[in-house]
Amino acid sequence: MAKSELAEFDAVFSEIVEELTKSGLKLSETKDAYTWFKEVLVYNVPHGKKYRGVSVVSSYRRLAPNAKEEDLHIARILGWCVEMFQAFFLIADDIMDVSTIRRGQPCWYKKENVGFIAINDSFFLECAIYSLLRRYVKGKPYYMEVTELFLQTTLQTVVGQNLDLTTGPPQGKVDFTKFTMERYSAIVKWKTAFYSFYLPVALAMHMAGISDEESHVEAKRILLQMGHFYQVQDDYLDSYGDPEVVGKIGSDIEDNKCGWLVVTALELATEEQREQLKSCYGRPGEDDINKVKAIYKDLNLEKVYKDYEESSYQDLIKLINKTNCKVSPEVFTDFADKIYKRKK
Amino acid sequence: MAKSELAEFDAVFSEIVEELTKSGLKLSETKDAYTWFKEVLVYNVPHGKKYRGVSVVSSYRRLAPNAKEEDLHIARILGWCVEMFQAFFLIADDIMDVSTIRRGQPCWYKKENVGFIAINDSFFLECAIYSLLRRYVKGKPYYMEVTELFLQTTLQTVVGQNLDLTTGPPQGKVDFTKFTMERYSAIVKWKTAFYSFYLPVALAMHMAGISDEESHVEAKRILLQMGHFYQVQDDYLDSYGDPEVVGKIGSDIEDNKCGWLVVTALELATEEQREQLKSCYGRPGEDDINKVKAIYKDLNLEKVYKDYEESSYQDLIKLINKTNCKVSPEVFTDFADKIYKRKK
Repeated sequence: MAKSELAEFDAVFSEIVEELTKSGLKLSETKDAYTWFKEVLVYNVPHGKKYRGVSVVSSYRRLAPNAKEEDLHIARILGWCVEMFQAFFLIADDIMDVSTIRRGQPCWYKKENVGFIAINDSFFLECAIYSLLRRYVKGKPYYMEVTELFLQTTLQTVVGQNLDLTTGPPQGKVDFTKFTMERYSAIVKWKTAFYSFYLPVALAMHMAGISDEESHVEAKRILLQMGHFYQVQDDYLDSYGDPEVVGKIGSDIEDNKCGWLVVTALELATEEQREQLKSCYGRPGEDDINKVKAIYKDLNLEKVYKDYEESSYQDLIKLINKTNCKVSPEVFTDFADKIYKRKK
Repeated sequence: MAKSELAEFDAVFSEIVEELTKSGLKLSETKDAYTWFKEVLVYNVPHGKKYRGVSVVSSYRRLAPNAKEEDLHIARILGWCVEMFQAFFLIADDIMDVSTIRRGQPCWYKKENVGFIAINDSFFLECAIYSLLRRYVKGKPYYMEVTELFLQTTLQTVVGQNLDLTTGPPQGKVDFTKFTMERYSAIVKWKTAFYSFYLPVALAMHMAGISDEESHVEAKRILLQMGHFYQVQDDYLDSYGDPEVVGKIGSDIEDNKCGWLVVTALELATEEQREQLKSCYGRPGEDDINKVKAIYKDLNLEKVYKDYEESSYQDLIKLINKTNCKVSPEVFTDFADKIYKRKK
């Protein structure tokens, strides 16, 4: 993304915090609550990579090359709504996964005096999306469509979250019966791809007046495929990426995650290797982790991944070229180029 | 409420479960998640008193005496949306309050294999409201209004929840600085009265074509006042109600709740009584609880309550009679009559 696009996006955040809290802070009855919520916003929303938020703006620019500044401002607001959408799920995710660190700082629920109040804060961030839509989008022809889109995407993500939470038993207990490629693909699609890939572009499409079902079906097909690859890559980088570059030390193996590497390994493994994986996956010890990695190496997973990356890219480009969608292909290729080259 | 009204309301629930889960159960990717969600619905939604849900229907009957069966059906669906709204908050409340029992059965998060997954289930119930609105209300002139109303009421309830959670420190640590009547009234209004009193009637008003701001402002004024009394009464019954009739044993004293009795006691107490309250409120021992009750008795809180009940009823009737609202007064008096006579 162009650096200035991100800078302009960032510049809008303080306005959002102001809009969301000013009337609540003025009213004596609700002042304490809004003082709290202001901190929730500042701590949880603006510290991500912001790919998703900024891609609403960049997609909208592609779809409306002569866009007015006023509409670009709305695109940025919608981008921040996507960031709040993510923050709302991450706060809850971290409690459900008993995580400790998020984006380089303690998880919100881990902060002193927060604890389970974080659940309510997660609801607050969700509500904030619809407050912003009312404030900035009401009266526009696409108000109802974007409101419904956020609501439906929430349900999709909740479905994905449930599939994920009910797939891997807690650390220490390994049960590979649900670690299938089919299940993996379902989790990725519902938990991540809808909100991370389809949602930002679909918002830009509605803003640009592209709301026909066919275009959305086509765009969704492409973007969900892209989302699938993105997650595979994420899982690959968790074990094979350079922690210095990725910015975190992977822990999918010890966390018993149903990731692409283990699912692929289980597909390729001999009966013996499968038994070995069973005895060392999802355990915190260094030795067990190294045994899992050794099996990955024996199965040549690095090569399997590289081949998959290449063929997945080719498939995607083919799909983009043959689509009948009203969306210009650059919206998708911009996105694809950012993803396929990333190292973090 | 007429028994048949409740029976007809109850009869709609199975249709709702079916509508919310049938397509998700058919799709192999999401089948497991929807099998889970079906249980979430059946366990958490239909076991309350259903006052709130049924009052959407009875209010709508008053406002549209010649209502068609088809519209009464929609009113029942909206009533169930209110019940799901409550269930969504109760699931989360119970986790935040570390409760164990709800409506005579273990709290959802306490069930085996559920735990923190309940947080996601709470989101699911929220999403289910908007799925039902899309399915049953989309295309009606009041679709946008009721959607926005649910979203705004969610934010109001979240604000109230925050005020409540940040008022009382955990059991054992007593801090009366925030136990003021002002704070108490704010918690009741935001956490309970909007969704329990204004929401059901406002839904019926929108269905009946009453959407002007003035009528809603007036109705809200009356209903929030009624909601305030309802909560005072609830707090009174917690200590003075007959557990056989109320159906549960009160525990506000030991739970360190910022309830009407303790707030009133603190207003009337001498310095010495205040110190005594400080040393025994919010503690689990029988002796401490009895000491608190003895102070309530010395302060004659039963009489203070009875006087308040009488004057509050008179005030409410006056307010109802002088209102300019397009809503017929019976909508409010029906409601008031149910509340002021209740013993549970």
